[in-house]
Amino acid sequence: MAQNKVLVANRGEIAVRIIRACKELGIPVVAVYSTADKSSLHTKLADEAVCIGSARSKDSYLNMQAVLSAAIATGCNAIHPGYGFLAENAKFIEMVEATGIKFIGPSSNVVSKLGDKATARAIAKAVGVPVVEGSDGVVENKEIGLKIAKQIGYPIMIKASSGGGGRGISVCHNDTEFKKAFDMTSMEAESAFGDKSVYIEKFVENPRHIEIQIIADSKGNVVHLYERDCSMQRRNQKLIEEAPSSILNEDLRRKMGQSAVKLAKHVGYENAGTIEFLVDSRKNYYFIEMNTRIQVEHPVTEMITGIDLVKEQIKIAYGKPLSFKQRDVKITGHAIECRINAEDPMNNFMPAPGKIGKILLPGGFNVRFDSHIYPDYEVPPFYDSMLGKLIVFAPTRKEAMRKMRIALEQLVIEGITTNIEYHYAILHATDFIKGTYDTGFVAKFNGLIQGEYNESLIG
Amino acid sequence: MAQNKVLVANRGEIAVRIIRACKELGIPVVAVYSTADKSSLHTKLADEAVCIGSARSKDSYLNMQAVLSAAIATGCNAIHPGYGFLAENAKFIEMVEATGIKFIGPSSNVVSKLGDKATARAIAKAVGVPVVEGSDGVVENKEIGLKIAKQIGYPIMIKASSGGGGRGISVCHNDTEFKKAFDMTSMEAESAFGDKSVYIEKFVENPRHIEIQIIADSKGNVVHLYERDCSMQRRNQKLIEEAPSSILNEDLRRKMGQSAVKLAKHVGYENAGTIEFLVDSRKNYYFIEMNTRIQVEHPVTEMITGIDLVKEQIKIAYGKPLSFKQRDVKITGHAIECRINAEDPMNNFMPAPGKIGKILLPGGFNVRFDSHIYPDYEVPPFYDSMLGKLIVFAPTRKEAMRKMRIALEQLVIEGITTNIEYHYAILHATDFIKGTYDTGFVAKFNGLIQGEYNESLIG
Repeated sequence: MAQNKVLVANRGEIAVRIIRACKELGIPVVAVYSTADKSSLHTKLADEAVCIGSARSKDSYLNMQAVLSAAIATGCNAIHPGYGFLAENAKFIEMVEATGIKFIGPSSNVVSKLGDKATARAIAKAVGVPVVEGSDGVVENKEIGLKIAKQIGYPIMIKASSGGGGRGISVCHNDTEFKKAFDMTSMEAESAFGDKSVYIEKFVENPRHIEIQIIADSKGNVVHLYERDCSMQRRNQKLIEEAPSSILNEDLRRKMGQSAVKLAKHVGYENAGTIEFLVDSRKNYYFIEMNTRIQVEHPVTEMITGIDLVKEQIKIAYGKPLSFKQRDVKITGHAIECRINAEDPMNNFMPAPGKIGKILLPGGFNVRFDSHIYPDYEVPPFYDSMLGKLIVFAPTRKEAMRKMRIALEQLVIEGITTNIEYHYAILHATDFIKGTYDTGFVAKFNGLIQGEYNESLIG
Repeated sequence: MAQNKVLVANRGEIAVRIIRACKELGIPVVAVYSTADKSSLHTKLADEAVCIGSARSKDSYLNMQAVLSAAIATGCNAIHPGYGFLAENAKFIEMVEATGIKFIGPSSNVVSKLGDKATARAIAKAVGVPVVEGSDGVVENKEIGLKIAKQIGYPIMIKASSGGGGRGISVCHNDTEFKKAFDMTSMEAESAFGDKSVYIEKFVENPRHIEIQIIADSKGNVVHLYERDCSMQRRNQKLIEEAPSSILNEDLRRKMGQSAVKLAKHVGYENAGTIEFLVDSRKNYYFIEMNTRIQVEHPVTEMITGIDLVKEQIKIAYGKPLSFKQRDVKITGHAIECRINAEDPMNNFMPAPGKIGKILLPGGFNVRFDSHIYPDYEVPPFYDSMLGKLIVFAPTRKEAMRKMRIALEQLVIEGITTNIEYHYAILHATDFIKGTYDTGFVAKFNGLIQGEYNESLIG
């Protein structure tokens, strides 16, 4: 792949991850950074690094013109967006396409369709993929919404069409709550995502959150890489992910995989993507949204399939066909990922940025740490609180849990508050051990352990 | 495995490796340490730690009575010896056996037979495994030796019967050299191994050093886990290991595997072991010795087979049968290990102990670091200079080499001299890239790069 050159339009661990993949493929790679990230690891590992603005995301990592200029100035012919920031911004992708630079991901047209949650729902319905009962697209106003909510039956959710990351969602149990929440959610959506439109969905109580990884090349080949169980969430944000899911049987796994591939094929999807589903207690699954980018939790899929997803993304963007077929992709063993965050689990997961002191990383067989931190690194307060992802792999789920416990015991990050001990506690919780947890686990768990967290449970 | 408890009779990275395996199996584990290792990582990670003497190995890690007392005092029912120190000491194993404690390795009887290089040779010959031409057992004196050397034809090697780790070996090209070397080698052998007996072998010039990993349970099941290529050596000590070997074809791989299993079965071998062979330029292979313990380079085998060798060792010792058969063991991809040492490659690999400063470890998919070092750790001058083992795995050898280069670039150990850059240079050497190197590589390479090492080659 001579003459190719990739710009990484991101920061943190995913920028480091992408830089490593480029280097391993022999492709020169350019980092971009805000003034707050001047000494961040991704700027040191890349072949070149370009400052694109000041600390606040909107002045740097969200500044489309600055990112694009950096790519043009350094002679890059592809941009990898990572996740978050501009990764699912159809307007940015359109701008990239207009320059002739390859966006490492699907086309702006596809992202634009799937990025609108209401449109995505309609597409899923059209191809026969089950969706949660809800409004057909955007709900114009409170009165229409009230009618739809009554038809579906409470509890329901009001969701921002352009939402993501667990934000822009209100749960309503009756008309009174609905009336109160509708305009508020719409206003929140406008301020957070620049789009006030909302839609309504049946609220599935304490479901499992299970997603299917797919990968598609430019020749129309689409393959799924099975599921990730991301039900362990705090405030609608994923905390622990594992693959395979302990609640899927072979039949359901096959059906969900097929649904995911069908959806991706229907929209002419290219590159890596994830179709998110809810699975209720009776094992019904419902499409909720498609993420048109690499996910934070992609490593668990890599561990059980042996496929390097980021390298595949880059190869696909440069026109290579997939080197494997559906029948070649097999699940081996079990993988678990813990998101290690600078946050205080006992104080509503409040971010806790600051200066890291010494670091000790766990090592050994099938223990992986994807991170951008280093000794004396100052975690800036401007971005998300993730310090890295600790991932383990073992032949069985039981062995993987044991391995994760030992790895957490041996992970030391001095100087700041982290959720390492909190993960350790979850790894000892009955519901996690049995695999019977759902998305409501953390709320219940925090009630249980508040106050006695450090003593009796960690011991 | 309730009530079980393991004592780890070792230090450094292998002690950490074994402690992790025990913990992952849910078995309590006890560390031993010398006064120089009081703050070593293995003492911190184990459930208990017992001081067994002062800094010098003979006063602590080689003090059989002290190690055994520690095991008895802490109620251990098994001892894992790691490699080096007492791992292949038949007398120690006999002492362990006499107490009823299980030695995690083969019986004293088997170790005693195979530990004597001359006897091991005779056994190999008896079961039809090819050996290098040489004396039938120990050579009594210089005169007999001279006769044998002439019969075989120069060059020959004089080797200590109890030798190991590349020590106690002299190469002779004619009678004069032989006369000079014989008594000296014998004396060296006595001082290093407490046994002055030596034997003679044909010297195979610049061979490949290829070894077969086997594992055997107490029920008589013996399985081989294919080969490791350990031809990249400095002063007869391994520096880089990889698996599979790029010079074996399927036929030779199968034959060498069968030879290894035959030998192990013949002696009633139990637990993990390695049969070392030389392979000459015409692809003839010759048995040289069997190592009756886990090897430093075992991780490359773990990476290509997915089997955790240390866990298997422990399970076997506790009476479990192997959970896999020969046909279940498949090679997937390619693994490379670089031994990261505190030493100066440009000064005859002189050990360079001292105080480590900050550390940055490479991470990501299929990058593994097995180590006992941590920030501000003081590397003691009393033991071997290995700081850790950097291991990578990828679908192909080419990708594995690229991954290792990137991992080496991202491995930073401040404060002391290491061979990280030296490994980086080797990873860019034509013979390594082509896979055409042999055990003579390092000597030639050092001649080439001396003086210009830091500039032109690393760049």
